Amino acid sequence: MNIIKQKLKSIKGTDKRWRDVAQARLNTLTKPGGSLGMLEELAAKLVTIYESDIPEIPEKAVITFAGDHGVAEEGVSAFPGEVTPQMVFNFLRGGAAVNVLAKHAGVDVIVVDIGVNYDFHNIDGLENRKVIKGTRNMKKEPAMTVEETVQCITAGIELAEKYGEAGYKMFAAGEMGIANTTSASAITSLITGISVRDATGRGTGIGKDALEKKIAVIEEAITINAPDCNDPIDILSKTGGAEIAGIAGLCIGAASLRLPVVIDGFISTAGALTAYCMNPALIDYMFASHISEERGHRAALKYMGMTPLLDLGLRLGEGTGAVLAMTLLDASLKLYSEMATFDEAGVSDKDGVR
Amino acid sequence: MNIIKQKLKSIKGTDKRWRDVAQARLNTLTKPGGSLGMLEELAAKLVTIYESDIPEIPEKAVITFAGDHGVAEEGVSAFPGEVTPQMVFNFLRGGAAVNVLAKHAGVDVIVVDIGVNYDFHNIDGLENRKVIKGTRNMKKEPAMTVEETVQCITAGIELAEKYGEAGYKMFAAGEMGIANTTSASAITSLITGISVRDATGRGTGIGKDALEKKIAVIEEAITINAPDCNDPIDILSKTGGAEIAGIAGLCIGAASLRLPVVIDGFISTAGALTAYCMNPALIDYMFASHISEERGHRAALKYMGMTPLLDLGLRLGEGTGAVLAMTLLDASLKLYSEMATFDEAGVSDKDGVR
Repeated sequence: MNIIKQKLKSIKGTDKRWRDVAQARLNTLTKPGGSLGMLEELAAKLVTIYESDIPEIPEKAVITFAGDHGVAEEGVSAFPGEVTPQMVFNFLRGGAAVNVLAKHAGVDVIVVDIGVNYDFHNIDGLENRKVIKGTRNMKKEPAMTVEETVQCITAGIELAEKYGEAGYKMFAAGEMGIANTTSASAITSLITGISVRDATGRGTGIGKDALEKKIAVIEEAITINAPDCNDPIDILSKTGGAEIAGIAGLCIGAASLRLPVVIDGFISTAGALTAYCMNPALIDYMFASHISEERGHRAALKYMGMTPLLDLGLRLGEGTGAVLAMTLLDASLKLYSEMATFDEAGVSDKDGVR
Repeated sequence: MNIIKQKLKSIKGTDKRWRDVAQARLNTLTKPGGSLGMLEELAAKLVTIYESDIPEIPEKAVITFAGDHGVAEEGVSAFPGEVTPQMVFNFLRGGAAVNVLAKHAGVDVIVVDIGVNYDFHNIDGLENRKVIKGTRNMKKEPAMTVEETVQCITAGIELAEKYGEAGYKMFAAGEMGIANTTSASAITSLITGISVRDATGRGTGIGKDALEKKIAVIEEAITINAPDCNDPIDILSKTGGAEIAGIAGLCIGAASLRLPVVIDGFISTAGALTAYCMNPALIDYMFASHISEERGHRAALKYMGMTPLLDLGLRLGEGTGAVLAMTLLDASLKLYSEMATFDEAGVSDKDGVR
C-alpha cells in the first residue's frame, strides 16, 4: 500500500503557464485561430504535460492487461472464459485488432498477464505479473482480497516505471478479460452513482435475457459485498478485475512520471475512474480516446469531465480505441511543430494584419 | 457539357453482393461480431467499391482546389483575398496544415489553381487548371458563366482521370478560397431547402455583425440571380466557387472510375452535394470525413444521408479533415485484411463454438 500512497502523493496537476506558451505558438500558425478545433486542445495539453516548447513525437506503448473473472460462471458474457488465454496467444502472435491498429499507429504492444486463469509458463513476449488466476465470483464473495488488489495496482505502477525508463513517453491502457464489462459496470455504478441498469450494457453481444441476468448478478454482488463507495480500493477488490486494478496503477504510475495515458473504452475507463478518485490531479495526464457502445461509458467519462476524441461505435477493448486516438495525438503535435507561421510563410493574418 | 453528361451516365451504384463477401470475412475475425463498429462499415464499403476480396492499402492523394471569390469584396471573410495565393505558396512549400496531416497519413498533396486571382506563371508543383481569375461578385451578378462552370467541373473530372491513371486509388477533396463559405452556404441553402441563416456560419472567424452582413449578402445574391434549385450547374454558376465546381467534377470523375472520394468539410461537401444532385449513385463512392463547426454542414450531410467519421470541431478546410479520415479508412482495411480469424488463432467463437 505504501508505494501507492507515495505515488499518489507525488502527483501534481500540470503547470497551466505552459498552456499559454502553447496557445501563443498556435496563434502564429497559418490557419484561422482555433480552426483546428480539438487538435489544438490536444497539442496544448501535451505541451503542458511535457513542459517543452516543441515536444518530440513520443515513443508509444499500449499496455494490454489480461485477467479472468470468476463471475463469468454466471453466464454474463457471450464468450466462454477460455477465450481470455486464447486471446493472449493471439496478442502475442500479432493477430488481434489491437496488434493491427498498433502497427498502423506506430505503437508497441505490451501484453501483461495480471490475472489470467491459465499457466503461460513464462512464454516469450508476455509480461508476467500474475497476481491471481482469475478473480473469485463477486456474486458470492469479494472478487479479490485487498492485498491482491494492492498487488495489481502496484504492478501497473511498476510497468509505467519500467517502460517509462525504457523510453516510452505515452501509454495507452488496454485490457482483455471475459466478463470484465460486468466488473466495469459495477465500478461505474458505485462511483458515479448511476443505477446498475444504467451502467450495464451488452458487452461482447449478449441477448436481452442475459442482459437482465447480468444486471441482477451485479446488483446481488453489490448487496452481498457492500463496498464502500468512497473507497476505490474497496470497490476494486470487491467487484474486481485484476486488469482493471492494473490499469488504475498504470494511470497512477504514468502521472507520477508526468507522462500521458490514453484511456481506451468502458473497462479502461473504469480503471482510470478508480485512480481518478484516489487523486483527481491525474486528470491532467489522461486522454479519453473514444466513446464506446457500452451504456455506462458516457457517465464514467462525464464524472471525470472528459471529452472523448472518437465516436466510432467501438466495443472491443484491448486498447484498440486508445491506439487509434494516438494517431490524432501525434497529428496534433505534428501540426503544432511542423506548420509554417504567418511570418515564415508570408501569409497575411486576420484582417490583413501581418 | 458532353463529357460531364457522359461521365454521369457511366456511374453505377456498387454491387451490394460484395458487402456480403466483406461481412462473411468480418464475421470470422477474432473479435465479437460488430465490435469494431464504424470501422467494419468502412471496410465493407471499400471492399464493395474495389470489388476485391482483400483490397490493398490504396495510394492516396488529396486534391486541393484553390479559387478566389468576387464576393470577398463585400467583407464576408475575416481574411483578405490576397491570402488565397499566399496559401497556395504555403501548400507548395509544405507549410500548411493539410501538408502536415497528409504526410502524417501517407497522402500526396496535389494543389490545383482553378480560379485564383493571381498569376502563378506555371510555377513548379502547381497543377494549373485556371478557368477564371476569381469569380465575379455574386451579390451583383452570376459568379461564373455556365461555360466557366462546365470548364471547372471538367477540370475536376480530368484530374481524377489523370491521377487515377497515375495509380492513386483514393482521393480526398480539399479547397482553399477566401470567402468560399459564403458560396457553400448559398449552395447548401438552395439544394437542401434550409434557410440562408441556418446555412451560414462564421467561416474563418467573423464577428456577429459581419455574420449578419454575410447572411444579407447571400440572400441578395439569391434574389438577384434566382438560381434554379433543381439545376446544380445553374446553382454552381450563379453562387459560384470555381474550386467547388472542381470538387463536384472530382467526385464525378472518381465515381466513374469506381474510386472512393473522401469529402472534407463544409465547402467540399457543397461541391459533393451538387455532384450528388446530378447522379445520386455517386453516394456509393463517397465518405464524409468529419462534421465541421460550420452551421450548414450537418444539413448538407443529412441531405445525402452521410454519417461523418470525425467530430473534432475542425473548420479549416484544405482537405485537413479528409486526410485525417483517410487514416481511419486505412485502419479499417488493415483490420479487415491483417486480423487473425478464429480458426487461424485457435480462439473459441461466441458461445464456445469454433
